[in-house]
Amino acid sequence: MTTPRIRYAMVGGGRGAFIGAVHRIAARMDDRFELVAGALSSNPENAQASAADLHIAADRAYTSYEEMLRVEKTRADGIQAVVIVTPNHMHFPVAKACLEAGVDVICDKPVTRTLEEALELERIVKNSGCFFALTHNYSAYPLVRYARELVERGKLGKLRVVQVEYPQEWLTEAAADDNKQASWRTDPARSGLAGCLGDIGTHAFQLAQFITQQKVKTVSADLTSFVDGRPVDDNVHALLRFDGGAKGMLWSSQVAPGCENGLRIRVYGEKAGIEWAQENPNELWFCELNKPRQRITRRGDIGSDIAARGMRTPGGHPEGYLEGFANLYKDIADILIARQQGETHFLQNWVPDIDTGVEGMRFIQAVLTSSQQDGVWTPLV
Amino acid sequence: MTTPRIRYAMVGGGRGAFIGAVHRIAARMDDRFELVAGALSSNPENAQASAADLHIAADRAYTSYEEMLRVEKTRADGIQAVVIVTPNHMHFPVAKACLEAGVDVICDKPVTRTLEEALELERIVKNSGCFFALTHNYSAYPLVRYARELVERGKLGKLRVVQVEYPQEWLTEAAADDNKQASWRTDPARSGLAGCLGDIGTHAFQLAQFITQQKVKTVSADLTSFVDGRPVDDNVHALLRFDGGAKGMLWSSQVAPGCENGLRIRVYGEKAGIEWAQENPNELWFCELNKPRQRITRRGDIGSDIAARGMRTPGGHPEGYLEGFANLYKDIADILIARQQGETHFLQNWVPDIDTGVEGMRFIQAVLTSSQQDGVWTPLV
Amino acid sequence: MTTPRIRYAMVGGGRGAFIGAVHRIAARMDDRFELVAGALSSNPENAQASAADLHIAADRAYTSYEEMLRVEKTRADGIQAVVIVTPNHMHFPVAKACLEAGVDVICDKPVTRTLEEALELERIVKNSGCFFALTHNYSAYPLVRYARELVERGKLGKLRVVQVEYPQEWLTEAAADDNKQASWRTDPARSGLAGCLGDIGTHAFQLAQFITQQKVKTVSADLTSFVDGRPVDDNVHALLRFDGGAKGMLWSSQVAPGCENGLRIRVYGEKAGIEWAQENPNELWFCELNKPRQRITRRGDIGSDIAARGMRTPGGHPEGYLEGFANLYKDIADILIARQQGETHFLQNWVPDIDTGVEGMRFIQAVLTSSQQDGVWTPLV
Amino acid sequence: MTTPRIRYAMVGGGRGAFIGAVHRIAARMDDRFELVAGALSSNPENAQASAADLHIAADRAYTSYEEMLRVEKTRADGIQAVVIVTPNHMHFPVAKACLEAGVDVICDKPVTRTLEEALELERIVKNSGCFFALTHNYSAYPLVRYARELVERGKLGKLRVVQVEYPQEWLTEAAADDNKQASWRTDPARSGLAGCLGDIGTHAFQLAQFITQQKVKTVSADLTSFVDGRPVDDNVHALLRFDGGAKGMLWSSQVAPGCENGLRIRVYGEKAGIEWAQENPNELWFCELNKPRQRITRRGDIGSDIAARGMRTPGGHPEGYLEGFANLYKDIADILIARQQGETHFLQNWVPDIDTGVEGMRFIQAVLTSSQQDGVWTPLV
Repeated sequence: MTTPRIRYAMVGGGRGAFIGAVHRIAARMDDRFELVAGALSSNPENAQASAADLHIAADRAYTSYEEMLRVEKTRADGIQAVVIVTPNHMHFPVAKACLEAGVDVICDKPVTRTLEEALELERIVKNSGCFFALTHNYSAYPLVRYARELVERGKLGKLRVVQVEYPQEWLTEAAADDNKQASWRTDPARSGLAGCLGDIGTHAFQLAQFITQQKVKTVSADLTSFVDGRPVDDNVHALLRFDGGAKGMLWSSQVAPGCENGLRIRVYGEKAGIEWAQENPNELWFCELNKPRQRITRRGDIGSDIAARGMRTPGGHPEGYLEGFANLYKDIADILIARQQGETHFLQNWVPDIDTGVEGMRFIQAVLTSSQQDGVWTPLV
Repeated sequence: MTTPRIRYAMVGGGRGAFIGAVHRIAARMDDRFELVAGALSSNPENAQASAADLHIAADRAYTSYEEMLRVEKTRADGIQAVVIVTPNHMHFPVAKACLEAGVDVICDKPVTRTLEEALELERIVKNSGCFFALTHNYSAYPLVRYARELVERGKLGKLRVVQVEYPQEWLTEAAADDNKQASWRTDPARSGLAGCLGDIGTHAFQLAQFITQQKVKTVSADLTSFVDGRPVDDNVHALLRFDGGAKGMLWSSQVAPGCENGLRIRVYGEKAGIEWAQENPNELWFCELNKPRQRITRRGDIGSDIAARGMRTPGGHPEGYLEGFANLYKDIADILIARQQGETHFLQNWVPDIDTGVEGMRFIQAVLTSSQQDGVWTPLV
Repeated sequence: MTTPRIRYAMVGGGRGAFIGAVHRIAARMDDRFELVAGALSSNPENAQASAADLHIAADRAYTSYEEMLRVEKTRADGIQAVVIVTPNHMHFPVAKACLEAGVDVICDKPVTRTLEEALELERIVKNSGCFFALTHNYSAYPLVRYARELVERGKLGKLRVVQVEYPQEWLTEAAADDNKQASWRTDPARSGLAGCLGDIGTHAFQLAQFITQQKVKTVSADLTSFVDGRPVDDNVHALLRFDGGAKGMLWSSQVAPGCENGLRIRVYGEKAGIEWAQENPNELWFCELNKPRQRITRRGDIGSDIAARGMRTPGGHPEGYLEGFANLYKDIADILIARQQGETHFLQNWVPDIDTGVEGMRFIQAVLTSSQQDGVWTPLV
Repeated sequence: MTTPRIRYAMVGGGRGAFIGAVHRIAARMDDRFELVAGALSSNPENAQASAADLHIAADRAYTSYEEMLRVEKTRADGIQAVVIVTPNHMHFPVAKACLEAGVDVICDKPVTRTLEEALELERIVKNSGCFFALTHNYSAYPLVRYARELVERGKLGKLRVVQVEYPQEWLTEAAADDNKQASWRTDPARSGLAGCLGDIGTHAFQLAQFITQQKVKTVSADLTSFVDGRPVDDNVHALLRFDGGAKGMLWSSQVAPGCENGLRIRVYGEKAGIEWAQENPNELWFCELNKPRQRITRRGDIGSDIAARGMRTPGGHPEGYLEGFANLYKDIADILIARQQGETHFLQNWVPDIDTGVEGMRFIQAVLTSSQQDGVWTPLV
């Protein structure tokens, strides 16, 4: 028997949006999902036109997510999951409504606009019995997962130093008024109080915790808003202390000319170090003390089931950002199918969830606090 | 009005195949195609099971392409195009049958098993009025297309030297008997007389002609079969002379340990050089004489419409092999839609066609001849 | 008329030493210096044998620097300069004696063991009328000097972010007792209270100030000694604030497996960024906002007199650590010749001096203080 | 007892020359040689001025090498060796005169202007009992020597494919009349009939033979002179067949914009491949079949005495072109000292000699012949 595709709807992601299209390609890559409905825009005209672009039937092109949830519930072929790709401030109300309607949620990051919302959402998720995934896509690259395995297998020994960074250049200058992507990201009402910190700093933070499997305990931070008049930070400097004894640095910036999407992590332990950079995600450096560095490439025979799962081509055939993102969707499909049969799938351990989301908001909160208090070491609570 | 998806069938590509899955992801990436039928295997059980895997209706899971063409013709929602992903020896009969049935063809490379077949197919394509595309996917990477534009705009000046290479390691040792991918590729009856030459040498050749927009006039070659008992070449050394005055070298190998999929091209002219390597396809080196090298990255603002068409994400979000492959499918969709309206789309100039296929077979023939005659310079005729 | 070679003596650097040999090669590279005397070891036998190795006449092989200064003063062909390559704690007394004897000094870094000594030495230098150079060799690489020029010429615009790091692996494990290089560097009595911080952190600090031409005002630091029983730090995490408004991070470590000598700096301004790494010092990345990165190589035509001075071969002929070090010696030779004629040479602006040394000690002091006080921002005073 | 420095003279290398200065730095690097005399220029004024620059006593600044040999022979402290750094056409007469005077010779490459001269010189060397070294410096990089050892130890298995290349850009345009370096290199009367082929093609050839320890048996070549009016080749395309069964390609060019000094070699065997590039000589890739590539760096603990000999600093301290060149001089010093004691030093096996020179000229001759005969496979005889 063929496993049927999962029927999903999207909230946000109409014409002119960016990340919605990425989610759709990721969901489509392995043919495990079918986009059947959408509340793609609150503007009715845009909602209809966007739906038509995406082969969504006209009667399932909604202008409000509330209506969508209400109507879809009545259909035999109604939606099974909702993908939320709105600006941050809408994550909470949409997710809440979905979960309360018993619909599984796949949500872009950061999980909410504030820590309070995140904590409230955590309660809702746990009471709902629904599935909730947070699309920290970078942790789904095969070699990132392999890096975590190397740590878990003890290949690095006890961890000591974690250097993570995520520089970009695209907000080096004040953004033009019509730059939709820039405008909501630098508007606290929609994005939250964190600018660069929330947009990409949380990715760096999540990646560090994911690979090390340690939690950041406390941070000492220095946030800056270099561009005149920008109401949120555009550069994050933070020192980290992990609960397993490691120490780290986190740098994220959106004012670094020459840097496109420079997420990069290096982890050093008593026995070995690993280094990985997102812009060439098909290689991972494994550096045993006093031995030649090994360049591990993304290929099926590296000895990791979880990494091999996320590969569609042999080594040397570069896979990238969309494939990494698609790995999350592939995993979520497997998890949802398992849940339909009342089972827990081991992949839940590899897909970011509401706890990841809450941790990210605690991180944002602690960094903001530390920076306001001149760098005092601040716990993540 | 939404543009409907193109309904296609696949011949070959059942369970256990490799390149079929790549074509399907490529066709799916931008949601322009719908897989509705298939002759995925000549084995009925495998054909049915493979079709079910792919959500193909059971009554459209055929065991012979002839039957498929016959039956589909009778359906209102019948197939509009066929994708051929069989071993090489089946390309000709399947393509012939499709074209004679008035169905457009998308065919994996090399176009046929022999030059004679290719010339015959050329006549058939031209008489059929159908569309025929050959999936030399590497020429659809955005920066490869931009490289061709740099040449066409005269940024390199008159071309002088072309160095192209495509080394792999996977046939360094005699392949195990159950290695399906290796076995047909080293069997002249299915693959043709060219081994490495046909499998990847033709990619290198096509890439060189594509970027330079010059034709190879003559070759001097030295083919080797290093592995004992292998009936076809596994290493190609060839000198090239182009009709525009450039000279070149082509190396392809399947016995080069450490090389995964090392397609790489460098072109030097009177004013500048360019360098590109497939394993990191998101960067192109542009080297003006006596100036610092520029690392051009795949991003929307490089000043090329054709390159920007083939991008789905901003710079720094690596796109890879599957995205490059998908660019061909996206282009083919646009071409097919235009043809439905009786128009010729400019993209036909960018998608490899039957002429490309014939040139590739002439190249294979000339290299075989030159190598048999101890390297005598041999024209491509 | 030929410019005669400068006659110098070395203190420290006998058999078994490391950095002495580097200084000698650097001094010899351009044939501007002649090693004529030495107090290479306090052990008389080693002093004699080491001198003989180096073609120093037996009667100029001293066992004490005091004696050497006394005797050499009496010779018509006596020494003109002393190179100090002892462990840190001897820098102060030797330099003081030389300067009081009217002999110019070339001293390895850090300048002294403590800030108090450095301040005292500063007074001595200024009263002596002698020349004093501190061999922060990394700032003498041609492309580092060119980086400083790019900043000075305004090519980066107002500076914002400075990321500097210097990781090594060689002290990942507790050093063997007979590891002479490791033992004095981890002994506070000889090295000072700073371990990794003094040994390589000061190089990173000096490089950052040299290129940006800004001074670090305050630091917030987290020092760690990861290896059990090690009395000094082996990992430095510090946040920096510069007097020109830039902010930065400094990481230096000696417990990072896979890192050999990973000094690296990245500076981002309003208009452009630059990136440079010591392990491949012949390339400098110049990244103008939204333009392709330029890979500037070490070659004569880059448009910088100061950089071109430090090149001995054309581009593509890699020059390295010893050549960079030799640049300091070449410059010092020119400065000393100019001083003999009562002139001030412009190169004094490019060679680290006693002020650089004092700044380095203030940095060490501030980092130690901040780290002891849980990261409180601490000024360099 | 201290080993005395070897007293040498230089022929050629006066003001305005290039490679002479490189030899002098190389000879000076390890302090094993002393430049005591010179016939630096046939122009008396230049000869005197150049000698003074180099601290050569005025009475040992000669204008003819014949006179120099005659006079030096009469001195108790006369020269022990001569370094020849003239244009190619003078190599033969100067070397001949030195050898007949019983003086050891260190000669720049290629060994002579013609094969006939080389064969004659071979006879002279062998009859003279003198030492003769040819400065193919690239084979003295530590990691090149280690590469040869890996081959010799069987780590690659039986060799199959050798790809060697040496592209430059500096003659992309017709050289200005006053470009001294370009003018003699493109003048057959001084350089020989080979242009790029003789200048750098021979380096690539020597490197390939050195690492593989196989001899090239036959070549098939295509020489081009792309720049109008240039009397010698500026681009070399050649196919190679080695006596041990390997096959190869050699590309050298002086018209490749973006290439500075791109000597690079890749060797693939049945078990592993190695890759090395001169512009970053401190790393060597060792690629075992189906294992992660290893990045071997130049550091003392890689397990090779011959490589470790040629290192002056720890790993991560880049050593470059001058250090590689200096390795030859250091080895020659050891060999000459051994010969003074009637011993043969094992290093003679690692330093290019007259046989290497003759092989290089046979290679030039065979390439010229093959290219003139439209690429016919031509033996090296």
